[in-house]
Amino acid sequence: MRYEELTIEGRNAVLEALRSGKPIDKLFVLEGCQDGPIRSITREARKHDTIVKFVTKERLDQMSETKKHQGVIAFGAAYEYAQVEDMFKLAEEKGEAPFLFLLDGIEDPHNLGAIIRTANLAGAHGVVIPRNRAVGLTATVAKTSAGALNYTPVAKVTNLSATIRELKERGMWFVCADMAGQTMYQLDLKGPIGLVIGSEGDGVSKLVRENCDFTAAIPMKGEIDSLNASVAAGVLAYEIVRQRLG
Amino acid sequence: MRYEELTIEGRNAVLEALRSGKPIDKLFVLEGCQDGPIRSITREARKHDTIVKFVTKERLDQMSETKKHQGVIAFGAAYEYAQVEDMFKLAEEKGEAPFLFLLDGIEDPHNLGAIIRTANLAGAHGVVIPRNRAVGLTATVAKTSAGALNYTPVAKVTNLSATIRELKERGMWFVCADMAGQTMYQLDLKGPIGLVIGSEGDGVSKLVRENCDFTAAIPMKGEIDSLNASVAAGVLAYEIVRQRLG
Repeated sequence: MRYEELTIEGRNAVLEALRSGKPIDKLFVLEGCQDGPIRSITREARKHDTIVKFVTKERLDQMSETKKHQGVIAFGAAYEYAQVEDMFKLAEEKGEAPFLFLLDGIEDPHNLGAIIRTANLAGAHGVVIPRNRAVGLTATVAKTSAGALNYTPVAKVTNLSATIRELKERGMWFVCADMAGQTMYQLDLKGPIGLVIGSEGDGVSKLVRENCDFTAAIPMKGEIDSLNASVAAGVLAYEIVRQRLG
Repeated sequence: MRYEELTIEGRNAVLEALRSGKPIDKLFVLEGCQDGPIRSITREARKHDTIVKFVTKERLDQMSETKKHQGVIAFGAAYEYAQVEDMFKLAEEKGEAPFLFLLDGIEDPHNLGAIIRTANLAGAHGVVIPRNRAVGLTATVAKTSAGALNYTPVAKVTNLSATIRELKERGMWFVCADMAGQTMYQLDLKGPIGLVIGSEGDGVSKLVRENCDFTAAIPMKGEIDSLNASVAAGVLAYEIVRQRLG
C-alpha cells in the first residue's frame, strides 16, 4: 500500500471525507462563517474529534492548492491507493461481475476527478491508473471527484498492459475507447469488464490497445475529432451500465 | 446578432479557427518555434492574409488568458452568437429533426466548452445559453471546445423558459436532466428534442423544469450525488443519439 499526504478543499469534498470516516487531522474554517453547510462540517468534525481552527480568508487562500476552498480546508487525510485485489473483493461483496476503469495516461486532474466521480456513479468497482506519465491523487482530483475518492478505490500499477494480461487470465474482458473501433452499441459489454480510456492527447497507446479484446467507438456526427476524455469515459461507462441493466 | 471580442489560444483551437474561415486579425507565434503544427498554423494564416507576429514567451504569457497558449495566440476572431432560428435552418439543411442543448446556468467555462464539444459530436444543431448568471464564450470556452465553437451555433437568450415555450409551439419536446426523473432508457427521446442541462450546483431551476415535457434520470449506482455537468450532458446526449440511430 502507498500513501500520499493530501489537503482536501471545498465544502462537499470535506463533508464527504468526514462522513466516510477518512482520518482528518486538522480542519481550517473561515472565521465568522456560520452558514448551514459550514455548521454541518464542524458538527461532523466534532463527532470525529478532529481539531477545528478558525482562520482568516488570507490564511486559507495561502494554504489552498485549488484556490477554490469555499471557506474550508482539511489536512492529514491520506488517500490510500488500493490494490486491484480490493476491487475484486468489492465486486464479490456486491455480488456483481467486476467492472473496472483503466486510465492510460490521463494528465489533467479535472479529468481524473470527473472520471472517478463517473466510476462511482456507474457502479464500477475501481479505477486503475499507471504509476508514470499520469496525474495522481492530488487535492484538485479529490475536489473534482466530488467525494467519490472516498468510496471508489484507485490503484496505481507499474505496467497497464501487464495488469490487463493478468486480469484477462482471471476472466475479465477489456474494451478500449478508440474512434477506429466498432460502434459501442454493437458490442456485447456485459460480464466482467475493464473499460480502457486513453490520454487526452494521444488516446490509448498501441501496446495497451493490442492487449484489449474489443475496440469501442462512440458514434461521432460532428466536424471535430474527439470528445473530452472524461465525457468519453462517461458515455462508454453508461453504455456498459445500460447493457448490464438490460 | 451580438459579437464578443475574443482571443483564441492553443494550437488546435487556432488552427481550427483559421481553417473554418473565422476572421482572425492578428496571430502571435512564439519566436524560433518551427515545428509541424506551428508551420501548419502560419501556412493557414498566410492563406487568409492574417498578420503574423513572432514574439517572446514572456509576451505570450502576458497576453494569455488561459495560460495554456502552446506558443500561439490569435486575436480578433469575434465569436458570433447565433439565433435559435439558425439552428432550425441547420437541422433542415441536414434533413434531421432539430436537436438542441439548453444550458440552465452553466458557470464553469471548462464545462461549457466540453458541452459544446459534445453537442458538435452528438450531432446537435446548437446550444442555447441564458444571457444572465452563466458563463459566455470566453477564450477558455473556445479552447475547451476543441474547435467545436467554429461549427456548432451558440445562441444567448434572455429567458430560457420563454424560449422553451416558444419552441414547444414549433413542435419540439424538452427533456431535462434530474435525478428525480424517469430512467432515461424508459423515455422516448426521438423526434425534435431539446436537452436541458442544469447548473453545476443547483441543477435545473424549478421554472425551467416545469416547462419541460419529461424529466430524465441517469441511473446512479454509487454513493455520491451527481455526475459532473459536462459528463451528465454527454451521457444524456448519447442516449438521444442511440435512440435516434435505433
